Amino acid sequence: MQMGLKEEKRHSLVKAQLVEIVGEENVDDSTSGRLVYSYDATPNFQALPDFVAAPRNAEEVAALLKRCSEQKIPVYTRGSGTNLCADTCPVQGGVVLLMKHMNRILELDKENLTITVQPGAITKTITDCVEKEDLFYPPDPSSMKISTIGGNLAENSGGLRGLKYGVTKDYVMALQVALPNGALIRTGGKLTKDVAGYDLTRLFVGSEGTLGVITEATLKLIPKPESQKTILALYQDIEAAGRTVSSIIAHKMIPVTLEFLDQDTLRAVEDFAHIGLPTNVKAILLIVQDGPKEIVDRDIKKIAELCRKEQAIDVQLAASDEEAQQLAAARRSALSALARLKPTTILEDATVPRSEIAAMVRAIAEVAKKYRVQISTFGHAGDGNLHPTCLTDARDHEEMKRVEEAFAEIFEKAIALGGTLTGEHGVGVTKAPYLEWKLGADGMAVMRGIKQSIDPQGIMNPGKVFAEKAKERVATEK
Amino acid sequence: MQMGLKEEKRHSLVKAQLVEIVGEENVDDSTSGRLVYSYDATPNFQALPDFVAAPRNAEEVAALLKRCSEQKIPVYTRGSGTNLCADTCPVQGGVVLLMKHMNRILELDKENLTITVQPGAITKTITDCVEKEDLFYPPDPSSMKISTIGGNLAENSGGLRGLKYGVTKDYVMALQVALPNGALIRTGGKLTKDVAGYDLTRLFVGSEGTLGVITEATLKLIPKPESQKTILALYQDIEAAGRTVSSIIAHKMIPVTLEFLDQDTLRAVEDFAHIGLPTNVKAILLIVQDGPKEIVDRDIKKIAELCRKEQAIDVQLAASDEEAQQLAAARRSALSALARLKPTTILEDATVPRSEIAAMVRAIAEVAKKYRVQISTFGHAGDGNLHPTCLTDARDHEEMKRVEEAFAEIFEKAIALGGTLTGEHGVGVTKAPYLEWKLGADGMAVMRGIKQSIDPQGIMNPGKVFAEKAKERVATEK
Repeated sequence: MQMGLKEEKRHSLVKAQLVEIVGEENVDDSTSGRLVYSYDATPNFQALPDFVAAPRNAEEVAALLKRCSEQKIPVYTRGSGTNLCADTCPVQGGVVLLMKHMNRILELDKENLTITVQPGAITKTITDCVEKEDLFYPPDPSSMKISTIGGNLAENSGGLRGLKYGVTKDYVMALQVALPNGALIRTGGKLTKDVAGYDLTRLFVGSEGTLGVITEATLKLIPKPESQKTILALYQDIEAAGRTVSSIIAHKMIPVTLEFLDQDTLRAVEDFAHIGLPTNVKAILLIVQDGPKEIVDRDIKKIAELCRKEQAIDVQLAASDEEAQQLAAARRSALSALARLKPTTILEDATVPRSEIAAMVRAIAEVAKKYRVQISTFGHAGDGNLHPTCLTDARDHEEMKRVEEAFAEIFEKAIALGGTLTGEHGVGVTKAPYLEWKLGADGMAVMRGIKQSIDPQGIMNPGKVFAEKAKERVATEK
Repeated sequence: MQMGLKEEKRHSLVKAQLVEIVGEENVDDSTSGRLVYSYDATPNFQALPDFVAAPRNAEEVAALLKRCSEQKIPVYTRGSGTNLCADTCPVQGGVVLLMKHMNRILELDKENLTITVQPGAITKTITDCVEKEDLFYPPDPSSMKISTIGGNLAENSGGLRGLKYGVTKDYVMALQVALPNGALIRTGGKLTKDVAGYDLTRLFVGSEGTLGVITEATLKLIPKPESQKTILALYQDIEAAGRTVSSIIAHKMIPVTLEFLDQDTLRAVEDFAHIGLPTNVKAILLIVQDGPKEIVDRDIKKIAELCRKEQAIDVQLAASDEEAQQLAAARRSALSALARLKPTTILEDATVPRSEIAAMVRAIAEVAKKYRVQISTFGHAGDGNLHPTCLTDARDHEEMKRVEEAFAEIFEKAIALGGTLTGEHGVGVTKAPYLEWKLGADGMAVMRGIKQSIDPQGIMNPGKVFAEKAKERVATEK
C-alpha cells in the first residue's frame, strides 16, 4: 500500500499527535506491528490499521479519543482479540487502541465483595485472585485464560456458568468510561441499589466498543460455592437430551452448567484431549451443580434420575475434582478441537428459549443437510445458547456461499423460535446485516440515535453492529 | 383556572383526538377526575393535568404518544402512584396516561421460568400467581400490595430482598415499549444470554417514564426457596448493629433480608402494629435467610453467633412462619407508622456501600442535630440502602427549609462515602437538582443526549430526572 505525498503528510501529523499523548514507544506504525493487529479470532476478516497505540492510563485514552474525534479517525479498542464476530478487526483503518499497559487489579474489597480492575487484566488472573480469598466471579467465557476483562465487558461475554449465575453484565457494578468527546465519566458504584439516572453501566457493557472505552470496572463478587459435582449423561437420541434439559428445570433445579455436545464434537474433543470421552453415542450432557455439599449431593442424585428417566443410556459421576476439571477443560477446548479438522471453522451462537433446544438442534441438522455443509453442534443447552459450528474452507468460494446461506437460515429459525442471533459472541461485522431481523427497523433507529448522540463523528469501532444495509430476509415458514 | 377562548378551542381539539384513540369513556377532563391524578405519594407536590386517558392496549398507547409528540403535549404514565419522588405528578399539565385497563397476566411459562404481564398488573397479584406454582419473583417493594409492575419497572424498584436477589431490573428479560414517535418495539426475549445490540431493556427499566411507555414485560422467575427463617437481634449500640452487617457478609453469608430499624422507628411501628416489638433498645436488625432447610438452619445459627459476638443484647428466633410474616409486615409498615406522627413525612433513600453503613447512620444523626429536625432511620442495611425519614409539617416553611438543607447535606455525605442519592425511589422531581452531584456534568450530558434522541419533543414525563438547574453544592469535608 503506497501513500501519496498528501497522505504521508497527514500520517506524520496524526502520528505526532498520538506520540504526544501516549509517548513514542507506545505508537507503532510499522508494517509488522500493524499486521499483528490486522485480524482477530474471527476467520476470514483482515484489515490493516494505520497505527497501533497503547495508552498508559484513562486520561491518555480520553485525550486520544478527543483528538481522533476532531479528525474523524476510527478507533478500535482491543484486548486479546479472542472475539468471534470480527469486532476488533480495524475494517476502516485508523488506530488500534491496545490496552496492554492498563492491566492491573486495583482493589479487592472484601467487605463490599467487589474487585476493581483495569480493562487489560486477563479474566483468569482476576478469577484466580478472587478464588484465593474464597470469593467467586462467575462469568467464565471459554477463552478466559487469554481474554481480557475489557473484552468481556465490551462483548458482555457469557460462558459455561451462565445458566445459574448469569453473564458479565450481571456482575458489573461501576465503570469509568472515556467518551469520544474526551470526557471521562463514572457510572454506578459499589451499590446493590442505585437508581440515580439511566443505567449507563449496562449501556456501555455489551456495546462492543461503539460508544466509548471502558478504562476501569468494579465487578461484583459472591461467596465461593462450597462444593461442586459433575456428571455425564450419554444419549443415543438427541431429542431425549433436549427433553432432559427441560425436565431438570421443570423440577426446580438450576444447575450451574448444562452443556450439550453432539457426536461430531465429542469425537473431535476426544481426539484432541484423550480423556476417555464416549465417542460411540449420539450426544452427551455435561452437568455441573455447585453449592453446599448436602444440596449438591441431593440435586445431582435427582438430576441423574431424571436423565435416566429420559432415556440416557448411561450416567457417569466424575470420580474426583481432577476428573471434573478435565471434563470442563475438554468442553472448553471444543472450538480448538474442531478447528484442527478443516482450514476454516465458523462458530456461531444462535440462542433460543430453553424450551426450544430440541427444535433448534433438529433445525440445524436439517439446514446443514439442505445446504450440504458440515455443522457440528455443542453449547450451553441449559440457557438455550447453542454453538453450531461449521467446518469449511474459506478458499472454496462456492462452499462458503452455501455456508453463509445456511447460517442465515439458522439465524432466521432462531428468531422464529423466540431466540436471538447471538447469545454471547456479539454482533460485530459478521452479524450486523442480520441485526434488524431481531430488533426491527424501529429498534435499530433507537440504537442509531444513542450511537449518534454519544459518538457523533462515528469514530468508535466503525463498521460494527450497524450495517450499511440490512440483509434481506429469506422467507421461511414459521 | 379559567381558559381563554383560544385555549378552550385547543382543549376541545386535543380531547377529540384522545377520544378518537382511546374512546370517549376513557378520557376524563372533569375537575374531580383530574384532581385525583394531580398528586402521588410524594408529600407537597400537586399539579392538575388537562386530561386523564386510559388506553386499552399497546397500539392505543403508541398512537397517543405519536399525537402528543406532534403537538408537544406532556405525557405522564401512571400506575398506582405510590412513588416517593413526585415522578407521577403532572407538573407541566398535559395527559396522565392511566394504565388501569392494561393489567392482565398474559402468560406463565413454567418451562422457561418466565411470566409475561401488562404494566397495570399489581405486583402482589403477580407474586401470588407465581408462588402458587412454587416459583418466585423476588423484587418486593414495600408498596407491593398496591403498586403496579409498570411502576416498579419505570422506577427499577428495590425492596427487602435486594441483598440476596437484586432488584427489579435483574428480573426483566423482555419488554414491549411504545416510543414517542409512535413506534412499538420489542427488546430482549426469554433468553439468559442475548447480546444482539445495546441493552435497551435495562435502558428503559428505571428511566422513570422519560423515554417511552412499557406496554408489556417478560419477567424472570426462579424456583421458590424451600424454607425461610427470621431472627431479630437487639442492640443498645447503633455502631454495633452496623458492624454486625459487615461481619455477616465477611463470613460469606448473604441473607435474603438484613433490615435495620432505629428506636424511633421501632416505637412508631409497635404503636401501629402491636406485635410486641422491643421498644427499649436503640436499634434492631431483622434478618431473614432462605433456601434449603439444612442450609438455612446452619446460616441462622452462625448469624446469631455473629450478632452476639458484636454485642447484640438479645437474639430472638421467630417461633413460627406467622410470627416471621408479622415481623416482615411490621417492617413494611414503617412508612405508614411514621406517617401517623406528624402531618408531613419525607422518606429518603440515600444509599452507601455496605461497609459505610455505620458512618452513614452517624452522619444522619449529626445532620439532624445540626438542622434541628427529627429524622428516624430504618432501611435495608445489608445493601447499604437506608431510609432516613423526616417527620415535619409542610405548612411550617421555616422548618421545611431546614429539612431541605439537612437532606442536601445527607445526599452530599452519601456521595462522599461512595454512595448515591437514591437507591430505589428514583430521581423524579425531588432529586433532579442533585443528580449532577452523582453523575457529573459529562454523565448528565450523556443522559440528555439519549433522552433527546428518543424523545426529541420532550413530551415524556417532563420536569423529571433532568433539572433546569443543578443544585449548588454545599462544601462538606470529605
